[in-house]
Amino acid sequence: MFSLDRDSPTPLADQIEQRLHALIASHQLPPGARLNSIRQLAARLGVSPNTVVVAYDRLVAAGVIDSRGTAGFFVADGPADAMPDAARVEAGEEQEAVWLAQQANDQKAGVLLASSGALPATWLEDAIPAAAVQRGLARASAGMASRCPPQGLPELRDRIAMLLRGQGLAVDAGRVLTTYGGTQAIDLICRAFLRPGDAVAVETPGYFLLFDRLRQAGVTIVPVPRRPDGIDLEALDAACTRHRPRLLFIQSVLHNPTGWGSTAANLHRVLMLAQRHDFLVAEDDVQGHFHPGTPTRLAQLSGLDRVIYYSSFCKAMSPALRLGYIAAEPALLKPLMREKIFTVLTTAALNEYVLLEVLAAGRWRKHLDRLQQRLGAARAAASQQLRQAGVLLEHAGEGGLFLWGALPAGVDVDGVVREAFRAGILLVRGATFAADGAADAHIRFNAAFSQQPRLAEFLRDQLSAATSAQRVVERARAAAR
Amino acid sequence: MFSLDRDSPTPLADQIEQRLHALIASHQLPPGARLNSIRQLAARLGVSPNTVVVAYDRLVAAGVIDSRGTAGFFVADGPADAMPDAARVEAGEEQEAVWLAQQANDQKAGVLLASSGALPATWLEDAIPAAAVQRGLARASAGMASRCPPQGLPELRDRIAMLLRGQGLAVDAGRVLTTYGGTQAIDLICRAFLRPGDAVAVETPGYFLLFDRLRQAGVTIVPVPRRPDGIDLEALDAACTRHRPRLLFIQSVLHNPTGWGSTAANLHRVLMLAQRHDFLVAEDDVQGHFHPGTPTRLAQLSGLDRVIYYSSFCKAMSPALRLGYIAAEPALLKPLMREKIFTVLTTAALNEYVLLEVLAAGRWRKHLDRLQQRLGAARAAASQQLRQAGVLLEHAGEGGLFLWGALPAGVDVDGVVREAFRAGILLVRGATFAADGAADAHIRFNAAFSQQPRLAEFLRDQLSAATSAQRVVERARAAAR
Repeated sequence: MFSLDRDSPTPLADQIEQRLHALIASHQLPPGARLNSIRQLAARLGVSPNTVVVAYDRLVAAGVIDSRGTAGFFVADGPADAMPDAARVEAGEEQEAVWLAQQANDQKAGVLLASSGALPATWLEDAIPAAAVQRGLARASAGMASRCPPQGLPELRDRIAMLLRGQGLAVDAGRVLTTYGGTQAIDLICRAFLRPGDAVAVETPGYFLLFDRLRQAGVTIVPVPRRPDGIDLEALDAACTRHRPRLLFIQSVLHNPTGWGSTAANLHRVLMLAQRHDFLVAEDDVQGHFHPGTPTRLAQLSGLDRVIYYSSFCKAMSPALRLGYIAAEPALLKPLMREKIFTVLTTAALNEYVLLEVLAAGRWRKHLDRLQQRLGAARAAASQQLRQAGVLLEHAGEGGLFLWGALPAGVDVDGVVREAFRAGILLVRGATFAADGAADAHIRFNAAFSQQPRLAEFLRDQLSAATSAQRVVERARAAAR
Repeated sequence: MFSLDRDSPTPLADQIEQRLHALIASHQLPPGARLNSIRQLAARLGVSPNTVVVAYDRLVAAGVIDSRGTAGFFVADGPADAMPDAARVEAGEEQEAVWLAQQANDQKAGVLLASSGALPATWLEDAIPAAAVQRGLARASAGMASRCPPQGLPELRDRIAMLLRGQGLAVDAGRVLTTYGGTQAIDLICRAFLRPGDAVAVETPGYFLLFDRLRQAGVTIVPVPRRPDGIDLEALDAACTRHRPRLLFIQSVLHNPTGWGSTAANLHRVLMLAQRHDFLVAEDDVQGHFHPGTPTRLAQLSGLDRVIYYSSFCKAMSPALRLGYIAAEPALLKPLMREKIFTVLTTAALNEYVLLEVLAAGRWRKHLDRLQQRLGAARAAASQQLRQAGVLLEHAGEGGLFLWGALPAGVDVDGVVREAFRAGILLVRGATFAADGAADAHIRFNAAFSQQPRLAEFLRDQLSAATSAQRVVERARAAAR
């Protein structure tokens, strides 16, 4: 049948598994064929029966062979014919937001994710110390057979509350609810507090998946312009008088997609308006870990009065853990936890233990410091390159991932984005971030990816071509006069 | 200040951390106090500066001290006063379903979870081999900085598809979507396919969180009785004619709460009705791993035509992983994936890699075999004890967790459940599982927990007391005649 290589470093069980797999794949052992019994094969190969058991077990687990009890082992029937991957979403076929959410994952495919919402994977490699994972796993293993409480592990909520107190938010573990990232926080808030027909104020530009989620909830989206120092207060006041929103979604720190901040005075006035017009505020702080300083937040100013705060470890620690958190007053937290139970029952204990150990290992602060420094350098380099290529960066922003750059007047933004996609560069156009979908000359640039000369070269070519085409048109017009 | 114990097995950094923590907790180092510099303390204690760095890092991470850059380290301001745990849900204060979902976690509190929906934690201790977790972790670590594709890791979907083919379901990886357990599968199905006002047929008795989720979705619940051999076909036919349901939720295998199965003939007719009345079927198979045989499933009979199938690894492998899966035709899977993106963006790569390795390790089948045997023995023992205590078990069921036992006529079920709660025994009454909340003399017993003599004793006392009280009433009535 086959023989084994006893000088090979590959364990004998692995060799048996591989040889059998090859024989089955090549149909030398066809579907339905009966394999040697464990004892037969062990004797023939001169190995212990246990070695054969290990190999057979793995092949059974892989679905390559079937165990039919006392009747023995048989080659499994071939898998059903390969069918096309059903849910691969293709450009244009789906709403842009969902498609982009999927593309953000595509770091392997050689596409330059110049507008990505995430850091390059390599930047997070040291975020989770191996030793912390080991310890977390040991604790989770002990708890592998038990479920995480729906509010989150008490020790982890304690730890998160401490981090929040470090930001000046007076929060204890009872005011924290863990979530599967910021996306779930948004979903729970929509489910707990919004009903179809409600008005909801949002910043524009803003996060496209939020807009889609709100549309899905059947609410009326009330866009309020974002300025470099915060939300436009006059526009907010007017919108409130007119639409009486139930809730305002706002990203006070390192706003997506602009990278802009909010002054404390602006935030103070937002809270005054919230009181006067009686609306709730959902403060999105998922970019907050990237801020190099100590920015003021609504949750801090308000002491959580009227404010539901949420953030996430997905961006700065690990997207593979998918953990975030909400902080809110008990009366607001309770309906959020009910919705968590209805939608996912609870978060996974494994992830919460690992996160707990990473935070307890005491390197989180240092990791963030390093990330912030690295991002600062990337922002400087990317800004310079983009400016040289002809992109207009009117307001620098306070740090973080994003640079909000405008293409010169007269340039066809959609055309540049399409051309970029053909050249293997993913750019997301400003209109995608507009709450009302209005055309916008901006592009969101991810500072970490946008240092690459390939992007600058592409943009320079595009913008100079556009500019010279425009000049031709202008000259033609001048000549026609 | 303090000294170190060099003979102790506790590492020096740990000792420094503990001593400082104690000094701060006792306010000998008050909030705001400046700590020794790293070099000062290292010199004073005769340790390397690195040792002090480790201790300080951990204290900073714990929020006990603050690093203020070149100014040094300071005792952090005290945490906000302890506030009550906000979202602890108390009995009666919340809907029963949510409260029960939380209680199910309470295995530590000495409460006998006689009606629990989960196995005792000890039964799952060997479900996840440590070596598999190590391998999964190694792979996840490499991928810790990247996000899981929204549909789930392709390798894991391949593996799940193989398991499903082993059950006779012709499924490939493209027809599989991973979820955070069965609860999320239900949520995604509700979101993707149901609109307020739709009619949805369900089995009664059935899963209470499903009923609550459907009520929340604003649909009309159409209850159809469950029989020991499957759903009541005449009642289903009549309900369809009258209500034209958009979808039927059904648990064909090891139905919760009865433990009953469905005959292949019954399932065939369900599919005929689905075609005639044009409704979708959501087949819940979250108990399926407990079935000792090869039961027929709707997904298998239909080849997934009209059927959305879902199951979970939470029950038989680990609630700490929180992973389940949906299998459906591409046209149905696509909207489900969209909803997954909108609600949680994606599942956690860490969990998917660990699950992949556990399945690849080849002990899953063996673990299930052992669980099924153990459950079989527990069912026999629990049935005998419950019968002796006076509980009526009219239909044995096919295996799995649940025994559906009726209390004798004339016994006040609600009173017994209340009395049990006082005695530290959690029983869930039949009415909780009734889609219309109607009174019901049954109780759902979890076979694994219901072997305990404490339960039998309690029930014997209650039922004999009820019977003798009834006899007194009857005698009094007879005497009065």
